Amino acid sequence: MREVAIIGAGLVPFGKYPKKTLADIAWPAVKQAIQDSGIKKKEIGAAYCGTALGGMMAGQRILKKVGLTGLPIINIENACSSSSTAFREAWIAVAAGVYDAALVIGVEKLTKFGGGTLPLEKEDWEVAHGLVMPALYAMRARRYMYEYGLTEDQLAMVSVKARKHGGLNPDAQFRDPVTIEQVKQARPVADPLTLFHCCPSGDGAAAVVICSADKARQYTTSPVRVLGSEINSGNYMTGFRDMTSPEITVRGAEQLYEEAGIGPEDVDLAEVHDAFAIAELLYYEALGFCAKGDAARLLEDGETSLGGRIPVNPSGGLLAKGHPIGATGVAQIVEIVRQLRGQCGDRQVEGAKIGLTHCTGGGISGFDHGVCSIHLFAR
Amino acid sequence: MREVAIIGAGLVPFGKYPKKTLADIAWPAVKQAIQDSGIKKKEIGAAYCGTALGGMMAGQRILKKVGLTGLPIINIENACSSSSTAFREAWIAVAAGVYDAALVIGVEKLTKFGGGTLPLEKEDWEVAHGLVMPALYAMRARRYMYEYGLTEDQLAMVSVKARKHGGLNPDAQFRDPVTIEQVKQARPVADPLTLFHCCPSGDGAAAVVICSADKARQYTTSPVRVLGSEINSGNYMTGFRDMTSPEITVRGAEQLYEEAGIGPEDVDLAEVHDAFAIAELLYYEALGFCAKGDAARLLEDGETSLGGRIPVNPSGGLLAKGHPIGATGVAQIVEIVRQLRGQCGDRQVEGAKIGLTHCTGGGISGFDHGVCSIHLFAR
Repeated sequence: MREVAIIGAGLVPFGKYPKKTLADIAWPAVKQAIQDSGIKKKEIGAAYCGTALGGMMAGQRILKKVGLTGLPIINIENACSSSSTAFREAWIAVAAGVYDAALVIGVEKLTKFGGGTLPLEKEDWEVAHGLVMPALYAMRARRYMYEYGLTEDQLAMVSVKARKHGGLNPDAQFRDPVTIEQVKQARPVADPLTLFHCCPSGDGAAAVVICSADKARQYTTSPVRVLGSEINSGNYMTGFRDMTSPEITVRGAEQLYEEAGIGPEDVDLAEVHDAFAIAELLYYEALGFCAKGDAARLLEDGETSLGGRIPVNPSGGLLAKGHPIGATGVAQIVEIVRQLRGQCGDRQVEGAKIGLTHCTGGGISGFDHGVCSIHLFAR
Repeated sequence: MREVAIIGAGLVPFGKYPKKTLADIAWPAVKQAIQDSGIKKKEIGAAYCGTALGGMMAGQRILKKVGLTGLPIINIENACSSSSTAFREAWIAVAAGVYDAALVIGVEKLTKFGGGTLPLEKEDWEVAHGLVMPALYAMRARRYMYEYGLTEDQLAMVSVKARKHGGLNPDAQFRDPVTIEQVKQARPVADPLTLFHCCPSGDGAAAVVICSADKARQYTTSPVRVLGSEINSGNYMTGFRDMTSPEITVRGAEQLYEEAGIGPEDVDLAEVHDAFAIAELLYYEALGFCAKGDAARLLEDGETSLGGRIPVNPSGGLLAKGHPIGATGVAQIVEIVRQLRGQCGDRQVEGAKIGLTHCTGGGISGFDHGVCSIHLFAR
């Protein structure tokens, strides 16, 4: 297995594009990534497209728009981790030498469902009984409050930070700041979560081009190396007795740090899966950024804000940047690439050398159903 | 890249199971494949699940039923080639040494759509104008009749052969024989195609376990080696001027034979994608089993029937075995595995040493949209 690098990144601002097709939403991100990489289209050996609800042959429909055909196109679904899983599959194939270069796309068009709760599988009895995502995370929030004394003000601060970062990101879906009071007073969704504790629905796409690291400098002066990639499934939470420890994230992070030969203290910034405000706090701990129960302190001390020790979600995260499910994994990677290259303007994490992305999905049927993918990158 | 072998195969008879969930349809195939392989569940490093319309996290839902969790689970969509694409992804990962063993699943539950034409993407303007699959293949059939003098009787013989083979396969959806007259007199679907020229809708699942070839004999006395794997996209037909040459199959077969170092004359049997009777004839030529225009003669001479030079679709193919879209790719592989092991009873191809599977999907929006995967196996 040879080292792999990212040589190009593209993204379309997340938003609501009900009148555009999935392919029309995505192709500008693909074009941007290819142009950014400096690679010729014919040098791209395969394309991996992550989408959860994009329908059949999403990758083929998108690539037709940019005149890229003939190559293997593989569509990958893994709920919220769809395109981060696609990235891993592309990474394996390029690292193994099957292709010298590959394109990875993340895309989703959620407006086609008309808003509201996503179409989940009725086969899940938890879903049939109403345990949809906001309810699940609300239970985790209540439990974390009980176990570790998290206050409503502290929980609201996650959303305040997300909007503050999002305000510095021209690609973010929500860019207006909010206050702790506004978050707490917003429309209730699932107690203790209000509207501003929940990521928005929307449409969007992102893309990256990867190639073998030894060829990367033929194309770009600023390749971003892939230090490691992990994906696993399993318990989304460790039973009702400890629903504040996301087992798949804890295990995936341990595996990844070992694989990459670094520790959480070496990570300069991270894009984590803050679909709900409480999630970001749980992931600080699961990813080893602080000890169990210390997440609120980490946040309050500003350590995870821009300018802090380890800025988390400088893009605004899912809460502000938005969360078109299948697009999120690659969009996180695009943010890390731009940060490591120093291209992020007002939200730049100064001197960032190592970045982490964390994407986790499923888990509706709480105990055997989750998927988590984590990646590490370095300039 | 190391050599990879199949060590276990499982399949549930294709049929209509409207009251079962997708997971309930699939798990017995998975259990059968694992038991057949002799591998322990904990030795399986990853699972790849191909499904076109199975909904989010199909693989996770299935594996929960057999108590297999914790491992990477990757869901793959590529229309009719979903699980053959999943097989290729698993093959890459095992060949690269990322996992020592992997499970590949193909699954679909089409009865959930209530029968009739599948839910296709309205984004395809061809679909919006009525160019659904039967119409597309009917045009190809008419063109082939015009170009090469194919008769209605010859076209019907494809279905007669499929049913004859299917009658020998306990897992086939349709096992009753039909006559040329019955095929011609059946309800018209899209002229010249009648009902019996079209594969049935249905539900089903199939699974295989693969591992590195050097470890295969630890588990089984009858491993089946993977000689090569190709997938590509592109023109489903070469423009209206030559819509009888499926370009992606022609190109894929050429690539695969070169990769494997063999030619079509070395293939002892094949499972090809006969979604409509005309398709099988086009693929005889595209896969190099005969010259352009000679397909009807090959069929009439019995060369592609059991007992002939190169039996095609000894399982009954999509026309008789059935075509639950995402299940088909792996189901074809299961048939080849059982044939190469000599386990096929009355439909056994005597002395079979090399088998080919061919699965092609998409192509609705005829020119840039198709996917084709072809695999070669040897005992």
